[in-house]
Amino acid sequence: MSVAVASPPERLLLGPGPSPVHPEVLAAQARSMVGHLDPWFLEVADQMADMLRHVFRTSNRLTYAVSGTGSAGMETAVTNTVEPGDTVIVGVNGVFGGRIADTARRAGADVVALEEPWGRIVPADRVASALKAHPQAKLVALVHAETSTGVHQPLEEVGALLAETETLFLVDTVTGLAGVPLEVDAWHVDVVYSGTQKCLSVPPGLAPISFSEKAEAVIERRSSTVRSWYLDVEAVRRYWGAERAYHHTAPISAVLGLHEGLRRVLEEGLETRWARHAEVGGLFQEHIQDRDATLLAQEGHRLPQLTSFAWPDGVDEGALRSRMLHDHGIEVGGGLGDFKGRAWRVGLMGEGATHANVDRLLHAIDELLEG
Amino acid sequence: MSVAVASPPERLLLGPGPSPVHPEVLAAQARSMVGHLDPWFLEVADQMADMLRHVFRTSNRLTYAVSGTGSAGMETAVTNTVEPGDTVIVGVNGVFGGRIADTARRAGADVVALEEPWGRIVPADRVASALKAHPQAKLVALVHAETSTGVHQPLEEVGALLAETETLFLVDTVTGLAGVPLEVDAWHVDVVYSGTQKCLSVPPGLAPISFSEKAEAVIERRSSTVRSWYLDVEAVRRYWGAERAYHHTAPISAVLGLHEGLRRVLEEGLETRWARHAEVGGLFQEHIQDRDATLLAQEGHRLPQLTSFAWPDGVDEGALRSRMLHDHGIEVGGGLGDFKGRAWRVGLMGEGATHANVDRLLHAIDELLEG
Repeated sequence: MSVAVASPPERLLLGPGPSPVHPEVLAAQARSMVGHLDPWFLEVADQMADMLRHVFRTSNRLTYAVSGTGSAGMETAVTNTVEPGDTVIVGVNGVFGGRIADTARRAGADVVALEEPWGRIVPADRVASALKAHPQAKLVALVHAETSTGVHQPLEEVGALLAETETLFLVDTVTGLAGVPLEVDAWHVDVVYSGTQKCLSVPPGLAPISFSEKAEAVIERRSSTVRSWYLDVEAVRRYWGAERAYHHTAPISAVLGLHEGLRRVLEEGLETRWARHAEVGGLFQEHIQDRDATLLAQEGHRLPQLTSFAWPDGVDEGALRSRMLHDHGIEVGGGLGDFKGRAWRVGLMGEGATHANVDRLLHAIDELLEG
Repeated sequence: MSVAVASPPERLLLGPGPSPVHPEVLAAQARSMVGHLDPWFLEVADQMADMLRHVFRTSNRLTYAVSGTGSAGMETAVTNTVEPGDTVIVGVNGVFGGRIADTARRAGADVVALEEPWGRIVPADRVASALKAHPQAKLVALVHAETSTGVHQPLEEVGALLAETETLFLVDTVTGLAGVPLEVDAWHVDVVYSGTQKCLSVPPGLAPISFSEKAEAVIERRSSTVRSWYLDVEAVRRYWGAERAYHHTAPISAVLGLHEGLRRVLEEGLETRWARHAEVGGLFQEHIQDRDATLLAQEGHRLPQLTSFAWPDGVDEGALRSRMLHDHGIEVGGGLGDFKGRAWRVGLMGEGATHANVDRLLHAIDELLEG
């Protein structure tokens, strides 16, 4: 059989991820191969972990990148902390809260799902009541940036509440990290994970993760073996820690890409980056409403980097989206779950969060709506 | 904080992996980003799956690349087929058989470990006896190419035996694929996985995997949920199949790298590639014995692509290996487990399997031994 070289078409990536990647980050993925135990590579991996601590705003020792995509980060977070029979409280107001609940059930947990309508936050007082009803809960899980709805979940109040208890605070910030403020230490977050292909603007393939000392202690006290070998933190940390024990081969090229992507985040400055996302996303949200679109996330809790909106009745979102890709080379996302068939998800994430991209997108939308 | 750009040193990778990567494969990883649901990318993913079928010598429909390294392939293979209480027979003659056993136990299996001394194969008659004692066994697992010992495990006889039964045949060919002959369909292998960073000469990060119809039927008949969400075949195959349902974001750059790597394997021809490994590895094994080294894999069952050998008493293998890296820029591997502290592992895999590399390595060894 004979297969041609794969040369991708030019796309402007303004969907829910992956986001556009800077050529220097792509170039880092093409550097020559080295071994995963090479002293040079171990130093680079240490630098990467330090940069992750910086963007997570944490001093957590156990901070690294899981060798898988954001969902592997979720599974690592849940499967290492939860044991069969544990009670786990999960906010479910979109696809990703639902996934945490599913993963926790597979780990043997009794899940208390705090369901809220899609597009609404999970209020802190609902968490407080649930915790009163289940004081023995092993953890409370919230999604910081719900990629399915564009909701920006407040975390600080719940963090303060849990800091007084034995319960861990688990946060999914796959779409949040480096796009909106996150203070892992100050907000008492114990387990937090992200993806690379959102506001970090690095290709998908790794999941940054961090565990507080409180979480590490819970893992050390486990009475059952973690159900996953690949994602077992105790084993993995012997590689990322001083011991450098072989566990599995790290994805070298992806680590070099993430290293370069994090370098760029630091060069811009984390707070400048948050402000850029806020400004650009706010602008888009203002203008898209002029096109009769309805924002689906509740006011006051909208992510600037990921906007979910419904078209007016009569607009065929699928056809419009397909023409956006084929005629304009712009990728946007369709709705998931409750929003399927009527919503779009527009990501202005990382390298994609620019005024020029907002202009180009609005211009293309206007052309398609007129056509 | 400020971090410099990471520019890797030049290394000749002759350890147990990663192997050297061709510049065209590295370049493929630097192509511009596209979405994981982009029609163009889905076509590339289909081509990749077709090429995997070609190198696995299978027509299995369920053939794809797991979004993780070879160990994630192992976990996917085991965790989807095994249910709590199942009996699983595992050949354990090195590190990787031991890992399969560990993973199966975490999946709730009763493991029957067929232990053999490191460096020896697992004889087919041991499998036959174990199967007679445990006719209800869910699967038999063997490691085709034991990376810790250099043993080349025969598979054909066991495959023929299991084809007559309900028991599945699971094969780890992380270091085997594209280096030594493997006939997934003809040898009745039901579940098989590999890594990219060995004889395929692609950076680490993906795990090619394939399931026979017999294995698919076993998965469909499961009475319990798979313990992993990330690696759940039923969910993943809705993305790789016609449905294209979103499960997790595929690691785009890694898939483009693997696509290019497989293209190169096909261009060379699979059988030519097997022959090249056999010739180059055989040459090295002949010459290294002239240096008083003892090959650790039993005669007649030695992998050409991965040679494990012990130095004579008095040679400090660690110091020698470190000088090999620092003075000659050549990475070789140390022994694992039983062979730690006295053995080397030399990989002549993929792009690394050349006469020139054997010459360079032997020359460097001679210089170091004289020094």
